Amino acid sequence: METLRQRLETFARERDWEQFHSPKNLSMALIAEAAELVEHFQWLSEEQSQQLPADKLNAVRLELADIQIYLIRIADRLGVDLLEAAWEKTEINEQRYPAERVKGDARRAAEYGD
Amino acid sequence: METLRQRLETFARERDWEQFHSPKNLSMALIAEAAELVEHFQWLSEEQSQQLPADKLNAVRLELADIQIYLIRIADRLGVDLLEAAWEKTEINEQRYPAERVKGDARRAAEYGD
Amino acid sequence: METLRQRLETFARERDWEQFHSPKNLSMALIAEAAELVEHFQWLSEEQSQQLPADKLNAVRLELADIQIYLIRIADRLGVDLLEAAWEKTEINEQRYPAERVKGDARRAAEYGD
Amino acid sequence: METLRQRLETFARERDWEQFHSPKNLSMALIAEAAELVEHFQWLSEEQSQQLPADKLNAVRLELADIQIYLIRIADRLGVDLLEAAWEKTEINEQRYPAERVKGDARRAAEYGD
Repeated sequence: METLRQRLETFARERDWEQFHSPKNLSMALIAEAAELVEHFQWLSEEQSQQLPADKLNAVRLELADIQIYLIRIADRLGVDLLEAAWEKTEINEQRYPAERVKGDARRAAEYGD
Repeated sequence: METLRQRLETFARERDWEQFHSPKNLSMALIAEAAELVEHFQWLSEEQSQQLPADKLNAVRLELADIQIYLIRIADRLGVDLLEAAWEKTEINEQRYPAERVKGDARRAAEYGD
Repeated sequence: METLRQRLETFARERDWEQFHSPKNLSMALIAEAAELVEHFQWLSEEQSQQLPADKLNAVRLELADIQIYLIRIADRLGVDLLEAAWEKTEINEQRYPAERVKGDARRAAEYGD
Repeated sequence: METLRQRLETFARERDWEQFHSPKNLSMALIAEAAELVEHFQWLSEEQSQQLPADKLNAVRLELADIQIYLIRIADRLGVDLLEAAWEKTEINEQRYPAERVKGDARRAAEYGD
């Protein structure tokens, strides 16, 4: 991921696009990519979303890539270590939702991430 | 990232939450987290978004973590290697937007990711 | 809707909040509200989303209100007549998707709105 | 708006698309449209977003229409009167944010809608 972070920084710098890449603007670009992912699933059933045909799966794969790319860019502009943050947040979640207490509980699952 | 992927899978399995984690549902959870990021920036200027006070930066950092976590989960459910996909998409972008031709070009930057 | 448009304009003006209400910022506020709607449904089945308990339905009702409010605000800032635009777009959709040709066709439904 | 609501219901029924139009799915379609709006603004400055050239303004106008259309559809499926709800929420906002106390206050503006 560190190599990718550097490569994306170089990509923006060489194109003089860093002027557009404020965290504010990048958050908009990121949510626009997230919406393209949502669009793939909006008229599918949950089951269908789990069994995508090959061409659709490949399109979805590239949407996931776009989200990852913008996520790395924002984190970079803000000086955030993405994996370290995700790791820390996972620890918080593990303590907040002890397995034995929330097992199969849709309501607690619903809270999660709020 | 691979260790984190496994840990998140275990997290969901131990809580019996995998039943909720269809790609469709996870795409909704992901965009909801992306929106929490957007909310932090919506009334800030671009400059302010680049110079967050410490407490706000920490809140934003955990939002980025939430997005990363759901992104890993979806990729996992679909059997997608996230970093490999991001790498491949970056190569596509590098070829599609040659630095010498799109330098500082807001219109080409705007196209990018469409 | 015209009375509501005026009242929302007065609301922003009396609070000196129009300075924050650029179309760019309002589009961010709008998508953040749309995401709060999505959050209500993310772990529900499609059936459950159609049969909300009263308290949840009321919460969802107020999210729909928030989206409508921001939509009116953006349209106002851009000088767009919202209902006229929606009417025109509906006519475009009726011509683009003739009932006899797309009946029950998930793929054509999926295209719709793209 | 009532005439439009009926027309959109007929549109969906004649195409046998109501099967796809659960509130859950419609919330996904709505946020995807909201993201298309965001995309128009993501690399623009706030000032530019207020002074769109005619062709871009027309494109944005039709995005606003798409959002309005899906908003009417969801409200209809849930039995919500959209304008009544928006009116009620506006009254709540007026009481929660008294003009004399929050005037020009970015922080209170930021809270608003949370």
